[in-house]
Amino acid sequence: MKKNGPCVRASGKGKYSIKGRLWIEGMEGTFLGYGRVVLLERIKQYGSITEAAKSMEMSYRHAWDLVDSMNRQSGVPLVETTTGGRKGGGTILTEAGERAIESFWSLLKRFDEFLKQETKISLF
Amino acid sequence: MKKNGPCVRASGKGKYSIKGRLWIEGMEGTFLGYGRVVLLERIKQYGSITEAAKSMEMSYRHAWDLVDSMNRQSGVPLVETTTGGRKGGGTILTEAGERAIESFWSLLKRFDEFLKQETKISLF
Repeated sequence: MKKNGPCVRASGKGKYSIKGRLWIEGMEGTFLGYGRVVLLERIKQYGSITEAAKSMEMSYRHAWDLVDSMNRQSGVPLVETTTGGRKGGGTILTEAGERAIESFWSLLKRFDEFLKQETKISLF
Repeated sequence: MKKNGPCVRASGKGKYSIKGRLWIEGMEGTFLGYGRVVLLERIKQYGSITEAAKSMEMSYRHAWDLVDSMNRQSGVPLVETTTGGRKGGGTILTEAGERAIESFWSLLKRFDEFLKQETKISLF
């Protein structure tokens, strides 16, 4: 699926383009935004918050805080850390985490379409 | 006309709300955004960049730079300063300036509707 950047840009025939940002707020403030969703994807990819954070040049502490904020605000955790077991534990993205990623990118896709349409009919 | 804040919020039945920002970019970067449009309105209200800036707790220099940026990027000036004349000159909002304000607020209104609709159908 196409990933939209943090700023979605729609360029029309004219000399102006309409840009915008979208994010989801929960009870504590930001719940999901571009950076958080990319972090979830990296956690899925690496199975580790440490590696996911490193790949985004983010401190472990900041990544952990973001995961904690998402888990607290979501009814069901998006990320789970297991300890022990045959593989010695690890960090996984839950099904709710997968759904959050998909829903966010499809929301951004509709936003991109909105911006393109608005740029097309723009009076600017 | 209803003025939308710099961040448009749509609250649904759920515990999440979708928020966003919109702005118009020209060849030099931002052309119009919430703050710039409020500045245009204040210039219309006060007939003076100095007074408009003061009412927004903005430096004259910053306000002047914003006006200059809008005028440079727009084909037709949005703000004009006249010198002399019976009233000793002044700063006025042009018709293009009036249209820019109206178009921006109506764009934000449609954006607000988009956010409300998305919040309604949101899977978050």
